[in-house]
Amino acid sequence: MEADLPGRVQETLADYLRTRRTQSRELDAAFATAVDELVRFVLGGGKRIRPTFAWWGWRAAGGAADGPQAQAMLRAASSLELLQACALVHDDLIDDSDTRRGNPTVHQAFAALHRHQRWNGEDRQFGMAAAILLGDLALAWADDMLHASGLPPEAMARGLRPWRAMRTEVLAGQYLDLLGPVRGDETPQAALRIDELKSASYTVQRPLELGAELAGADETALEALRRFGSDIGVAFQLRDDLLGVFGDPEVTGKPAGDDLREGKRTLLIAEALESAQGQGDQDALDLLRGVLGDENLDEKRVEQSREALRRLGAVDAVERRITELTGTAMAALHGAGLAEPAASRLAELAVAVTDRNR
Amino acid sequence: MEADLPGRVQETLADYLRTRRTQSRELDAAFATAVDELVRFVLGGGKRIRPTFAWWGWRAAGGAADGPQAQAMLRAASSLELLQACALVHDDLIDDSDTRRGNPTVHQAFAALHRHQRWNGEDRQFGMAAAILLGDLALAWADDMLHASGLPPEAMARGLRPWRAMRTEVLAGQYLDLLGPVRGDETPQAALRIDELKSASYTVQRPLELGAELAGADETALEALRRFGSDIGVAFQLRDDLLGVFGDPEVTGKPAGDDLREGKRTLLIAEALESAQGQGDQDALDLLRGVLGDENLDEKRVEQSREALRRLGAVDAVERRITELTGTAMAALHGAGLAEPAASRLAELAVAVTDRNR
Repeated sequence: MEADLPGRVQETLADYLRTRRTQSRELDAAFATAVDELVRFVLGGGKRIRPTFAWWGWRAAGGAADGPQAQAMLRAASSLELLQACALVHDDLIDDSDTRRGNPTVHQAFAALHRHQRWNGEDRQFGMAAAILLGDLALAWADDMLHASGLPPEAMARGLRPWRAMRTEVLAGQYLDLLGPVRGDETPQAALRIDELKSASYTVQRPLELGAELAGADETALEALRRFGSDIGVAFQLRDDLLGVFGDPEVTGKPAGDDLREGKRTLLIAEALESAQGQGDQDALDLLRGVLGDENLDEKRVEQSREALRRLGAVDAVERRITELTGTAMAALHGAGLAEPAASRLAELAVAVTDRNR
Repeated sequence: MEADLPGRVQETLADYLRTRRTQSRELDAAFATAVDELVRFVLGGGKRIRPTFAWWGWRAAGGAADGPQAQAMLRAASSLELLQACALVHDDLIDDSDTRRGNPTVHQAFAALHRHQRWNGEDRQFGMAAAILLGDLALAWADDMLHASGLPPEAMARGLRPWRAMRTEVLAGQYLDLLGPVRGDETPQAALRIDELKSASYTVQRPLELGAELAGADETALEALRRFGSDIGVAFQLRDDLLGVFGDPEVTGKPAGDDLREGKRTLLIAEALESAQGQGDQDALDLLRGVLGDENLDEKRVEQSREALRRLGAVDAVERRITELTGTAMAALHGAGLAEPAASRLAELAVAVTDRNR
């Protein structure tokens, strides 16, 4: 099972969603058609990074890879992908993004369905409403799938602590992410806090902790995994920020400099703005402010922005921080004496998700 | 406790939300301010009808009013109000409603905050995003509150069946409600199916079943409560539909004929359109089609619509159906031999929620 975790997660999700789809069909045929769109979205890709961390958290705390509870643990881990589906569907709507993983976003797909069917009313309004409801459905089903995993009640009671924390933290992070540009809060501190809540907690730390709690980890192991997860989670996001500006479109699957076009207030940008202000570099400030959120940004100005980010030392600062965070994470991991092969696999994962060529 | 159930639900919610608010403050001050808005919304009113049915479902199946688990049951029942908060916040956004219970809706409150603070960007966009996230938070917290109720695991395992069904059914009902006018599906059958999913299941049937399952009801009692709940739930919605057109604004708290203005495709309207079509009454068809969804509808045309609805027999048809449903519900209730005083209280509630002067 561990040779192809993403594949096993995919099967587990497909199984679960098949049952829910059948039940939805019994409620109403048109509703089942809407559910199909959600199923397509969930099964349509993603690296399954959250279930992977949950699985290795379970294994690190002594959970067996092929014991009687392994299948149940796989279901619990896979439920994180339904949570993620809610986050993505609602996020895409908030950002009014048109595509996700090369396909239309859910609100765009429903707007297109509305146009195709020549239905009454406004296509955008229908797309928005359908995406809100399907995101809610994914969130409700995430809880359902976790609770139907088949793990014993005492394990579930432990696992609910990180599960509860995670769902609130990611929403807090999303709200702060929204608030940042709105309030004009562009400090590195603000960017880092969002990374902690929206990325580290939600992507690495809490999934790891969920798996470890479900396996009955002791407090020493939990504490080590929490520190490892928080540091690697932030480092993962910082690498993502660098790739969002400097990444090869062939590898990232997004146009070059897309994060600039979207106007994301990442730590990279915050460091650059702070440095430009400190140095009184008005040209760089004007360039970056003009570029951020400019939907028609061309390749030439993307390249100018990259040069400015390098010149201002922002790239070095972020690279340095990734190195530091990876270092402290590895130290926490090695000091904890976790079960093998989980400890080694977590170290490999830490390198993989923070790697320049990931 | 049973003398003032809504008051006890209010206290229970206030207690739970106080803890979550404190935790939110530890995450971030600005997030806590957003949470305050959700807390205000949840504590700001509502008849607590879903927790009330859940409570009497518990009592009907032999749950003790002041036993060691009564407080835990009250928490489980109160969690339904957080589910309802998600439904209302997201529904108000989908309908772009400005007010709810005499206060601004959540998306309007956040748009107003945006304007008041003279923040960057678009106020409407910010209001929409904040309402999506806070609705999600309410949905996640509903699950959290249920699972933290303190009821034993075997009770929770039983209760999760109706809980799971309810959350999917209400979303299916909301989706169909959306789809009705969009597809131009105005049949009485379609209206009734939405009433079953969006109102009956969610407002009466599943809450009753949740309480009964948590108390360990046998299949006979569950079946009786399900039938009672489904019939009373639909009858409740049909009464709501009549009040939405004929209700006294002083009692309903909404402008006269507000359902017409909003263009709601209720069974009342569906029956009227079907009857007008059957009778070839083009004047009535033109009148109703013109009135439905007309935001500037005046009192004179509201009165003309009322006359048409009466003349077409739609009011009588709906009243008849309420009487029938209340009759079959009462028969199911009386035949089940449920524990007192719950059986009597449920009969009183059935009358109260379907009453002309409620």
